[in-house]
Amino acid sequence: MSDGKPSIAVLGGTGDLGGGLARRWAKAGYKVIIGSRSAEKGINSAEELKASLPGSDVSGADLKDAATQADIVAVTVPYANHGATLEQIKEAVQGKIVIDTTVPLRPPKVGRVQLPEAGSAGQEAQNVLGDDVRVVSAFQNVAAHHLMADHDIDCDVLVSGNNVEAREVVIGLAADGGMKAWHAGPINNAAAAEALTSILIQINKREKAHSGIRITLGK
Amino acid sequence: MSDGKPSIAVLGGTGDLGGGLARRWAKAGYKVIIGSRSAEKGINSAEELKASLPGSDVSGADLKDAATQADIVAVTVPYANHGATLEQIKEAVQGKIVIDTTVPLRPPKVGRVQLPEAGSAGQEAQNVLGDDVRVVSAFQNVAAHHLMADHDIDCDVLVSGNNVEAREVVIGLAADGGMKAWHAGPINNAAAAEALTSILIQINKREKAHSGIRITLGK
Repeated sequence: MSDGKPSIAVLGGTGDLGGGLARRWAKAGYKVIIGSRSAEKGINSAEELKASLPGSDVSGADLKDAATQADIVAVTVPYANHGATLEQIKEAVQGKIVIDTTVPLRPPKVGRVQLPEAGSAGQEAQNVLGDDVRVVSAFQNVAAHHLMADHDIDCDVLVSGNNVEAREVVIGLAADGGMKAWHAGPINNAAAAEALTSILIQINKREKAHSGIRITLGK
Repeated sequence: MSDGKPSIAVLGGTGDLGGGLARRWAKAGYKVIIGSRSAEKGINSAEELKASLPGSDVSGADLKDAATQADIVAVTVPYANHGATLEQIKEAVQGKIVIDTTVPLRPPKVGRVQLPEAGSAGQEAQNVLGDDVRVVSAFQNVAAHHLMADHDIDCDVLVSGNNVEAREVVIGLAADGGMKAWHAGPINNAAAAEALTSILIQINKREKAHSGIRITLGK
């Protein structure tokens, strides 16, 4: 950790969602390691991000090296690569917090809720990585379009995980990225945010929008 | 239909959520029939509601009679009674719109997402009632507390169903009840709203709130 801030690997950080999160965290002063299946692609992405955010601490590596180097590991790969990525980093992330942003979309019907048999992609990650990894699911509903921009984000984040302190850490990371996040219960409650993404895809199509959700307290 | 407005049976209208919906629709000028397992309980609830809303057209009946009399049938019973209620009204609702508000909560762990094997309670309803019934899932996230009050509701409604015109009808009924509603895709997309209810229960507990959701378009 530098300056008391944990370093964060963003696996799939060459993609839209991962790139947006990497950008926001780098801007907030975190050391960010962009992980890609190809180390070269990760390094190139890191160079680009660093160039657009002078003074930021960003580097690139392949998936496993990125996961090894970081204190916290965010998995932002497409669902098709989810299981393989988790197997690849399993050893490297033991004892760490893994932030899973995966939505179990099955193209081409991405507007249909099709949750996996385990209940949620978050639960699948917990099952693969084992109980010594604090898996926290979050950021499934935030449009990459907004993450990439510099404006405040009009979308809340639902944070699921079996470890409350790990959820608190992720809620803090969301805040540092300009997002309000909420405790959403144990890891399999990720099903709600994962399913919601297909609803937002439906709304985006009808309304030509980059939709999101807000929690209201209704007091 | 009176005044061109469909009549609405609210099965489970003696309960909090159903009572709140019945109240809002009666207030908006719909003929409402409160259905209960006991006709007497339904009639008593109807009398109470009518007394508090002078000029309203509210009556009570048992579940099957209520479903038979109405143009549109809303099912607002607890999940434990969901399957039995659907079997009871199956014949009476052929060709009609059935609004299913059911959330598959399994007490005591109501803060945990535990979706049924079919994917959602909405899908279960469609499976039981058959393809000639236009099942539309909605209102799972609205706190009864707010429905019972006279204020505007700071919670949007996600509307799932295989028939788009039936969804439009329910979106109109939501608007007449003071709620903004959104097309959420086919019936099994009800999974999102159903799962979200457990998240709102988590938030209510932590924040001592009657929480809800709002869709943001983020344009």
